Amino acid sequence: MLIGVPKEIKNHEYRVGLTPGSVRELIHHGHQVLVESEAGAGIDMHDQDYRAIGAEIASAEQVYARADMVVKVKEPQPEEIARLRAGQVLFTYLHLAPDPTQARGLLASGVTAIAYETVTDKHGGLPLLAPMSEVAGRLAVQAGAHCLEMAQGGAGILLGGVPGVAPAKVLILGGGVVGDNAAQMAIGLGADVSIFDKSLERLRHLADKYEGRIKCVYSTVDRIDPKPIS
Amino acid sequence: MLIGVPKEIKNHEYRVGLTPGSVRELIHHGHQVLVESEAGAGIDMHDQDYRAIGAEIASAEQVYARADMVVKVKEPQPEEIARLRAGQVLFTYLHLAPDPTQARGLLASGVTAIAYETVTDKHGGLPLLAPMSEVAGRLAVQAGAHCLEMAQGGAGILLGGVPGVAPAKVLILGGGVVGDNAAQMAIGLGADVSIFDKSLERLRHLADKYEGRIKCVYSTVDRIDPKPIS
Amino acid sequence: MLIGVPKEIKNHEYRVGLTPGSVRELIHHGHQVLVESEAGAGIDMHDQDYRAIGAEIASAEQVYARADMVVKVKEPQPEEIARLRAGQVLFTYLHLAPDPTQARGLLASGVTAIAYETVTDKHGGLPLLAPMSEVAGRLAVQAGAHCLEMAQGGAGILLGGVPGVAPAKVLILGGGVVGDNAAQMAIGLGADVSIFDKSLERLRHLADKYEGRIKCVYSTVDRIDPKPIS
Amino acid sequence: MLIGVPKEIKNHEYRVGLTPGSVRELIHHGHQVLVESEAGAGIDMHDQDYRAIGAEIASAEQVYARADMVVKVKEPQPEEIARLRAGQVLFTYLHLAPDPTQARGLLASGVTAIAYETVTDKHGGLPLLAPMSEVAGRLAVQAGAHCLEMAQGGAGILLGGVPGVAPAKVLILGGGVVGDNAAQMAIGLGADVSIFDKSLERLRHLADKYEGRIKCVYSTVDRIDPKPIS
Amino acid sequence: MLIGVPKEIKNHEYRVGLTPGSVRELIHHGHQVLVESEAGAGIDMHDQDYRAIGAEIASAEQVYARADMVVKVKEPQPEEIARLRAGQVLFTYLHLAPDPTQARGLLASGVTAIAYETVTDKHGGLPLLAPMSEVAGRLAVQAGAHCLEMAQGGAGILLGGVPGVAPAKVLILGGGVVGDNAAQMAIGLGADVSIFDKSLERLRHLADKYEGRIKCVYSTVDRIDPKPIS
Amino acid sequence: MLIGVPKEIKNHEYRVGLTPGSVRELIHHGHQVLVESEAGAGIDMHDQDYRAIGAEIASAEQVYARADMVVKVKEPQPEEIARLRAGQVLFTYLHLAPDPTQARGLLASGVTAIAYETVTDKHGGLPLLAPMSEVAGRLAVQAGAHCLEMAQGGAGILLGGVPGVAPAKVLILGGGVVGDNAAQMAIGLGADVSIFDKSLERLRHLADKYEGRIKCVYSTVDRIDPKPIS
Repeated sequence: MLIGVPKEIKNHEYRVGLTPGSVRELIHHGHQVLVESEAGAGIDMHDQDYRAIGAEIASAEQVYARADMVVKVKEPQPEEIARLRAGQVLFTYLHLAPDPTQARGLLASGVTAIAYETVTDKHGGLPLLAPMSEVAGRLAVQAGAHCLEMAQGGAGILLGGVPGVAPAKVLILGGGVVGDNAAQMAIGLGADVSIFDKSLERLRHLADKYEGRIKCVYSTVDRIDPKPIS
Repeated sequence: MLIGVPKEIKNHEYRVGLTPGSVRELIHHGHQVLVESEAGAGIDMHDQDYRAIGAEIASAEQVYARADMVVKVKEPQPEEIARLRAGQVLFTYLHLAPDPTQARGLLASGVTAIAYETVTDKHGGLPLLAPMSEVAGRLAVQAGAHCLEMAQGGAGILLGGVPGVAPAKVLILGGGVVGDNAAQMAIGLGADVSIFDKSLERLRHLADKYEGRIKCVYSTVDRIDPKPIS
Repeated sequence: MLIGVPKEIKNHEYRVGLTPGSVRELIHHGHQVLVESEAGAGIDMHDQDYRAIGAEIASAEQVYARADMVVKVKEPQPEEIARLRAGQVLFTYLHLAPDPTQARGLLASGVTAIAYETVTDKHGGLPLLAPMSEVAGRLAVQAGAHCLEMAQGGAGILLGGVPGVAPAKVLILGGGVVGDNAAQMAIGLGADVSIFDKSLERLRHLADKYEGRIKCVYSTVDRIDPKPIS
Repeated sequence: MLIGVPKEIKNHEYRVGLTPGSVRELIHHGHQVLVESEAGAGIDMHDQDYRAIGAEIASAEQVYARADMVVKVKEPQPEEIARLRAGQVLFTYLHLAPDPTQARGLLASGVTAIAYETVTDKHGGLPLLAPMSEVAGRLAVQAGAHCLEMAQGGAGILLGGVPGVAPAKVLILGGGVVGDNAAQMAIGLGADVSIFDKSLERLRHLADKYEGRIKCVYSTVDRIDPKPIS
Repeated sequence: MLIGVPKEIKNHEYRVGLTPGSVRELIHHGHQVLVESEAGAGIDMHDQDYRAIGAEIASAEQVYARADMVVKVKEPQPEEIARLRAGQVLFTYLHLAPDPTQARGLLASGVTAIAYETVTDKHGGLPLLAPMSEVAGRLAVQAGAHCLEMAQGGAGILLGGVPGVAPAKVLILGGGVVGDNAAQMAIGLGADVSIFDKSLERLRHLADKYEGRIKCVYSTVDRIDPKPIS
Repeated sequence: MLIGVPKEIKNHEYRVGLTPGSVRELIHHGHQVLVESEAGAGIDMHDQDYRAIGAEIASAEQVYARADMVVKVKEPQPEEIARLRAGQVLFTYLHLAPDPTQARGLLASGVTAIAYETVTDKHGGLPLLAPMSEVAGRLAVQAGAHCLEMAQGGAGILLGGVPGVAPAKVLILGGGVVGDNAAQMAIGLGADVSIFDKSLERLRHLADKYEGRIKCVYSTVDRIDPKPIS
């Protein structure tokens, strides 16, 4: 199959659909790969890196025109949708629910679009969404710790405290992939972490995983908003 | 040296000054040991056990009359003080401070009394008191957990909770040997443990030891009794 | 649905079918809840606590007469069975196997009785029984440690020992939910824990969970009773 | 059923199909067991040990002639195949794939042969192969550590280093049962361990299990052989 | 003693010499405390909080004029030095080495100045400097993690990676209080941490503390700058 | 100072007195270093590696003749002693106690010999001996595990067992540096480790360090040889 990797054009998107390592893997399995010039610049991978492992470098127009399958990161922008065509496969994050314009554009193009976030494994998991959730959960605590610094307008709280000063309390709502990864970072920084979830099975898994370093609490209306209804 | 081990006569004292293993050690180092008949019954060690490793079994009278050093557990009771004599060494817990009657009795007897609780090592530690503090700290949590059972008139609280139910809070005042050992058991049972101490050095040691599973807080009047003076 | 919560009348039962937090949750989801006066007294929750979150307080007669579903803790006692009626749902622990009198009473009443201990989840687990097993396993070790105290007639053994004295041996037969929770507490108290099970899969799970702090042994007649048959 | 346990005759095989404990288990469940004389000598279990728990001792001829099922360790050697017969069950490791001679011999004998390595559990696992993989993974690191000693012709590397000297790098290809067990030993010896696998699900499991003490890396052609194709 | 707490006037300094809890402690031990109006505003502690536990609120002039000892955070600024006087004690961080102007000002004022950073304990440690080093080490990793985000101009590296992606390498130069605390946070975030120090004793302490989750390496010119001298 | 590094000539000694990194360190501090040709061959460091960082390569004769200080690994062999001279410093392991011939040779040579194993630090520790003890303790368990393999004539025991099979028992006599490092490896391999020592202080340190993964037992004649004296 001829696989095309255009450069991402959405604002603040530095990623690329396929790293040179992934390209090499696909070529190893008998595919051909067409990469837009400098598609990997945002991760400091350049045309020579892709050429060295066997990819062909091309313009965006060529990538869309020739590829059997287009592999991207973000949902296609209007000028990208205009280049898609019937018989072609688009493989990327789509997040169509809040974006009917995109959905109509894809329908009109005739492309076969497969959204990463909807691919399921045999256990019903979402293997292509999970890594993003892992990153999100880990970054959430890093971002929160940063925002608590007084110089950032925060309350001047260090998550782990220091010996003599009690650690900060971190409450995580939901013990799924995001919450689990956030918990791991918050525990790692020494915070006093509680996690709320409505699944006892999930809470048991987290209690086992973090062995006494986290409070796993069944979530109810009353715990989230402990004021009487009146 | 002839070492004597009388049977403890204080109420609820089941221990004995020397176990057969300790007696064997002393004999191995050239001493002779005289054990009162059934002195070790409370720990299920009997005369044949002491005889088998070389001790001589005798009456209480003989033990006190012949021994160069008397090794006991508890402070001597009045009838025991009456048997002590000048030139003899008494090695046991004394806790003289609140017990002037005992102090006067020992003075009158002429015995050389060495209190376990005052023996110091080269670092200023109390090596013979520490094991009792270790036991005390560990038992304290076991006793507390028992008293929290509803059937014992407690609040029906399980220290570690279960997944879904937050653990109980345990506050330990003082991070010395007793507090450290209590903390270890409370953490082991899954409680949410805080320890207060006035020594930052000690809090640092505990924070290192329990790596994020304990809150080490500097103790002030304000933290113990957080109401305003007014 | 109108949900009724009678006060438990079985001896030594201090629990209540629904806590105020659970009642609030049900009201939040559109149900009405009728609570017998002082049904929650055993957990220190009183009529005003239930009223504050929207429950109605009533007599036992009213609760049984009006409720579409009765939520309890223990199996209904004879005077409770007498109040159940056809068309009503009873949701509680029943443990019918050893109790044919209760079974006949429920049949005669025409009630639809759902036993907590028989509710299964999609993996074949018993989600309403598991928390009781967790509590049972954790309390078992706490009770055992208490019974080993010499003052309770025990052998005077401290599960974890202290440095210098080897810990006590704890043998757990069966590595299910009860055994796993018992192991967790026994390990937490510092004991030398072995667990026997006939499922290698379960032993692998426990070996992974407790990483070298437990001995996971395949159970055979020979290990449980190592004397020759002769 | 009459179960027969012949002595293993393959070179360097010290194991035996059934230990006395397993024999006792089978007898407890109503079977009869016939053990070849000194079949267990390699594990220091002798005829009296098997007789004591109810087994009958016999010659190899008798074991093969009388047993309904023969339980062994290694694939049958030519002289063993000659003794198998139709209507008999053979339960042992076979590893037939590279051994057509054995396969033809078994077919000719009419025996019903069940290979340990092909028995699957309800999750698709290989319960009788897994313990061998566990042993293999654990021994692999032990053997590797030994071979790295200078006296064995190795590079004189101690896996864990010592404080001041960085630990050795251990790379494990594949995070299945063998790789997981090898990782556990290598981590235990203090090495700097990386594990490569093509299953993100498996890598997540290992990352959770070893909490920051292992590097879990997605395996690609590029990581195994990082030179450009050119 | 009459202790005075002026409001810090140095730029970006939000701390205060004494929190209400510390003031209460001093009053409990028989001292009087004079706090400048709103000295604690930066930590959200206001005049009523200090008055409630027995402090007197005053102007900066009064604090300096009346106090026997002035307790501050930062070194005195020129207008603060002008208010100090002979017979008064100043207790604050001074860091005089690079600041001869301040040193001359203090000498001229006749004040007895005690620098927090020079107070030593009986082991030669710096108990008043250590907590700042603990905060510095912990914040260093938090700041570094933030700066590595692509949105901050960093390389887009997440310290802990995620399963499948190897963690980032963190190198800490010096295993003192700052380095130890930085290591703790970096390990907690899942990084691959190495620490260099010239003290084997310190490296042993860190190796024991972090048990295989850190590489403790003896530091030499060659390791820091591994190029040949030529 | 001119420092000389001869090639080790004792049988089975592959080490060298100074690695290139150490040589560079010494040159950085103003010394000159003379290395015997191929002194580092056993650790795969060759003349060009030493030359590249500024060392001079010479014959053994020159090294001994010119060096102010000779840095070695093993005690000098007779032909080496013959080359030492008054005014020269020899820095190496000597272990003179069982080797009066060497002692007499050194005395006769007039050299100032400093034995690594006798250098003490300010706490009374042996900083140059400790790393050898660390290596010894770690290798001891590796060697023991190897010897327990059946193929080596051992009992066919895997230290950690596998899930279902209890781990092997490892008893370590003495909890000093060697014992502590042996314990760390044995625990890492999953064994059931007990350590005996006569110092309660040391046992407490080990109990804290290994948190429930080791049995720390006070050592007596009775525990080592539990038979009665008779």
